[in-house]
Amino acid sequence: MTDFPTAPSPHELEHGDQLTPRFDANGLIAAVASHADTGEMLMLAWMNAEALARTLETGEAHYFSRSRGELWHKGATSGQIQQVVEVRVDCDQDAVWLKVRPQGDGGACHTGARSCFYRVVENGALVARP
Amino acid sequence: MTDFPTAPSPHELEHGDQLTPRFDANGLIAAVASHADTGEMLMLAWMNAEALARTLETGEAHYFSRSRGELWHKGATSGQIQQVVEVRVDCDQDAVWLKVRPQGDGGACHTGARSCFYRVVENGALVARP
Repeated sequence: MTDFPTAPSPHELEHGDQLTPRFDANGLIAAVASHADTGEMLMLAWMNAEALARTLETGEAHYFSRSRGELWHKGATSGQIQQVVEVRVDCDQDAVWLKVRPQGDGGACHTGARSCFYRVVENGALVARP
Repeated sequence: MTDFPTAPSPHELEHGDQLTPRFDANGLIAAVASHADTGEMLMLAWMNAEALARTLETGEAHYFSRSRGELWHKGATSGQIQQVVEVRVDCDQDAVWLKVRPQGDGGACHTGARSCFYRVVENGALVARP
């Protein structure tokens, strides 16, 4: 398990050059992935310290599966490996944004949809939309 | 506090037309906001049921501030009101994606940056990038 340092001050957290992710009480941060070429939002998942470290080391997206309670190398079984083009953190370093290129069938969702966000809320109901 | 229904089955959760958000143990779901016109990722925050309901009712983004422990009408003090153009949910309905038009100075981040994701991870360090 890789340890990340803690920011020495709120100012450093928001403006410093040190990666000091703030994991929550469960040891997780939110991670959103978009397509590096099209900008399409693909999925939102969680990372623990190990998942973030592996992602940075390997250049392939790793998440933490909350349902399975284990490290999740995205695409290891589905083929939907996500090659990471860029990793960003937000102001208070409790979220990361990955720009990725999905391999395999090019999708990111286990349902077969290209993006997990395939439904729009309209008048309180969900409508499937590209 | 608005109640949302629970999906009657895993199939309905993923393929149905009913909005059945799955809030976590703290009553929250993750919400990511991108700019409706440029596609730029702006911020990632959390919503409780009330925040989601208010967002859908008013067409302006409401979140739940974990640090303050209260409903947060984005922009109420900063002027950075987010007019909501579209709301999407992900496959298992534990995340929402808002496409928004930020008002006021056009930004989304309390630091003054347009997006909260103003730093890229490069060789383990953070670098500010547009």
